[in-house]
Amino acid sequence: MSSSSHPLSDRPAVTVIGLGPMGRALAGAFVAAGVRTTVWNRTPGRDRELIEQGAIGAGSAAEAVAASPLNVVCVVNYDAADAVLRRAEVTAGLKGRTLLNLTADIPERARDTGRWAAEHGIAYLDGAIMTPTPSIGTPDAVFIHSGPEELYRAQRPVLDALGGTHTHLGEDIGRAAAYDVALLDIFWTAMTGYMHALAVAGAEGVKPAELVPFAQGIGAILPPLFQEFAEDLESGSFSGEGNPLTSAVSSMAHIVHASESHGIDASVMRAAEGLARRTVALGHGTDGFSRIAEFLGRR
Amino acid sequence: MSSSSHPLSDRPAVTVIGLGPMGRALAGAFVAAGVRTTVWNRTPGRDRELIEQGAIGAGSAAEAVAASPLNVVCVVNYDAADAVLRRAEVTAGLKGRTLLNLTADIPERARDTGRWAAEHGIAYLDGAIMTPTPSIGTPDAVFIHSGPEELYRAQRPVLDALGGTHTHLGEDIGRAAAYDVALLDIFWTAMTGYMHALAVAGAEGVKPAELVPFAQGIGAILPPLFQEFAEDLESGSFSGEGNPLTSAVSSMAHIVHASESHGIDASVMRAAEGLARRTVALGHGTDGFSRIAEFLGRR
Repeated sequence: MSSSSHPLSDRPAVTVIGLGPMGRALAGAFVAAGVRTTVWNRTPGRDRELIEQGAIGAGSAAEAVAASPLNVVCVVNYDAADAVLRRAEVTAGLKGRTLLNLTADIPERARDTGRWAAEHGIAYLDGAIMTPTPSIGTPDAVFIHSGPEELYRAQRPVLDALGGTHTHLGEDIGRAAAYDVALLDIFWTAMTGYMHALAVAGAEGVKPAELVPFAQGIGAILPPLFQEFAEDLESGSFSGEGNPLTSAVSSMAHIVHASESHGIDASVMRAAEGLARRTVALGHGTDGFSRIAEFLGRR
Repeated sequence: MSSSSHPLSDRPAVTVIGLGPMGRALAGAFVAAGVRTTVWNRTPGRDRELIEQGAIGAGSAAEAVAASPLNVVCVVNYDAADAVLRRAEVTAGLKGRTLLNLTADIPERARDTGRWAAEHGIAYLDGAIMTPTPSIGTPDAVFIHSGPEELYRAQRPVLDALGGTHTHLGEDIGRAAAYDVALLDIFWTAMTGYMHALAVAGAEGVKPAELVPFAQGIGAILPPLFQEFAEDLESGSFSGEGNPLTSAVSSMAHIVHASESHGIDASVMRAAEGLARRTVALGHGTDGFSRIAEFLGRR
């Protein structure tokens, strides 16, 4: 593990565990930024291209974690992360080092990992990556982090090798995962809606390329509405002035009808319409669409 | 109805039928642009403010349609439009005039109205408004139209009083409604996803205002992905390189799990996940997310 004879021996060092598309992008960005980068993946062979670029291939997970003060893990979910990290020799190797888990999962898994890390003397940060793999190493990348602020500040210089913006969301270790889940909720729901729109448009003889500029127009009106609807929720005003929930239900019913008249599954819009109808049924028909968030959050 | 003694008697004239929030916005924009604007609404009293601004209140729908060469209808759906337009004296009054129906409904209703209009000697354009009421009369407004191109060109000067951009999509009278349904599909699905995200974030102690800037970041990455996924669909390539459908399923399952662990209804994401899983089950797990549109469109 010694690199004392290396002319760049004082350079920062990181280990990347998990060499799926995102892990490879992370490791590649570290290598490109001159960080001493050790890599490991459960399935061998994924490190070849990275090693050609200058990364160091580790022979085992235990060897990998021992190579660097900062260990970045990015695998498919926390079951996969646990299968690597919670083996005795790996856990022992992580003692006194920092673990940054960029694996996506639910907040409770991050909190559970926080308890495990504390028991084993491992400094733990949890994070999430909000942008696609090609953004890594560019100004477009968006990373969110949670955990001890001091720890975050200490690791921040090496994380800057990944490019983009990094935001520390708070000391609750589950906070990055909470944002991640909420933001992916928006992303996948919107993307599913777009897939469905392409299918319905296709059945009507409208080509994807014809729909795109208008779809992009819809995309452009979302951000200001996100702001407006968040304000409704915080103020509890839910004004339906000009756009009552009953109008949304009517519009959603048209979409279901148009879709099913072409034999196209409308299960997503049916579920959305059902949610809106249940909110109306509780007496909120003249409220704005933001009332749905309040209705969903009731317990 | 005569206004021959009016100093502006040669100015363009329009009748607006339906004075809900959008109808009032349309009529207000016409009045503001100096168009001679006659208004009518089934429920009386909605025209008061418009008349103060200079609109002419009609005593009946038949009187309203007789007042102008162009009649713009914007009501809740085609059932409501038919209830006004398909009465003998109104249909007769529309003969030789132009009807622009900006009411939202499914394409088949526009085509049915096209047949009815042809039978009764009514020149018919169908249209849709893709932006919220406050956009009307401003450069932000987006209108789409379908029907005979010559007719569209003839009416275009008076329509410009509504501001924004107007696009003629083709001669198939159902085409504007087809775009409208597809675009509203994206809009309402995305908005429902955002409502759900606010509820899940809230259960995790994340305030709406805290989530907004990141939610807006998600909104900003949608338009280029809309382009990319449309190209996938047109080329039939569906490359899952770096982001296979199986990863999307895993991410969607996290959202369902996180939501339901807080007792929050996840019916929309469950439906979306089901769609993705069914697409994977047909052998498309390594394809990209755009494969879902192709799967939905199969018949």
